[in-house]
Amino acid sequence: MSILDAVDAVRTKLEQEPGRAVVRMGAEARLEEGTAVTVQARAFALTVDEPVSVGGTNTGPSPVQLVLASLASCQAITYRYWSEFLGIRLDALTVKAEGDIDQRGLLGFADGVPAGVSAVRVTVTVEGPETAERYEELRRSVDAHCPLLDVFTHPVAVERILEIAGSE
Amino acid sequence: MSILDAVDAVRTKLEQEPGRAVVRMGAEARLEEGTAVTVQARAFALTVDEPVSVGGTNTGPSPVQLVLASLASCQAITYRYWSEFLGIRLDALTVKAEGDIDQRGLLGFADGVPAGVSAVRVTVTVEGPETAERYEELRRSVDAHCPLLDVFTHPVAVERILEIAGSE
Repeated sequence: MSILDAVDAVRTKLEQEPGRAVVRMGAEARLEEGTAVTVQARAFALTVDEPVSVGGTNTGPSPVQLVLASLASCQAITYRYWSEFLGIRLDALTVKAEGDIDQRGLLGFADGVPAGVSAVRVTVTVEGPETAERYEELRRSVDAHCPLLDVFTHPVAVERILEIAGSE
Repeated sequence: MSILDAVDAVRTKLEQEPGRAVVRMGAEARLEEGTAVTVQARAFALTVDEPVSVGGTNTGPSPVQLVLASLASCQAITYRYWSEFLGIRLDALTVKAEGDIDQRGLLGFADGVPAGVSAVRVTVTVEGPETAERYEELRRSVDAHCPLLDVFTHPVAVERILEIAGSE
């Protein structure tokens, strides 16, 4: 099924059942040896780890690399959707996401240093036959509807629950 | 090298060269057929995609699942670091991250609906011999130093650059 047909079907379904618009998603991580973590998201498994330089075993991308991968891929997919919605042709698209992290934050060397990522920059390179104005129109629609750009640029409350299973 | 030894080496290095505290990280995404995206982060490649229900080809987790995977794995790794720093034993740790996404945001069905994720909840299950007070102390240190928790809970400015390569 084409993207437009699938999206039309979702639109029709949600007009009939608006209560189904909100979808719950999730991922589950298990800490393995050292800093290695296996994560399961639906049918997909991946390994996350830290590089050797900070005591990791480098068996996968770090969480900060993974969130930049989420942002880059979300931009790319949102470009795909909105190019279809707006009828703007894309021949090729790459997205580079970069950010700075201050190691003193995570590692607790300096209390005033935020643990998160700063100076985040997304560079989108598009190839295609349309005018610069049309691609700029596409960019504006993408940036208004990209879930990961929203996660980065707005504060999202995170409820935390700690369960202690005890050691049997 | 143990985590504590590696972290001590980083601390010593940064005391000598504080300008090296900030590390630039990145990921690069390439849009493939439909909604499939290949992402490269250092030596690691992964595929991101949307499920069939919204016109995708389901060859990998979605960007929203990936950001929840980033959050869950970042919490797990930060528990590992801080359990070492504080001398609190962990026998096993799992982290479940969940969030809601309103499909009307991404798909542009309703302009007032944010594209991002809401009702985010992290459930950490720890096994080990320590008291509940010690694990609660660990949780407080983790939550003060977890980079992904910081990304979710604080607004991060994202610079966007659109380059048009043209179709040769």
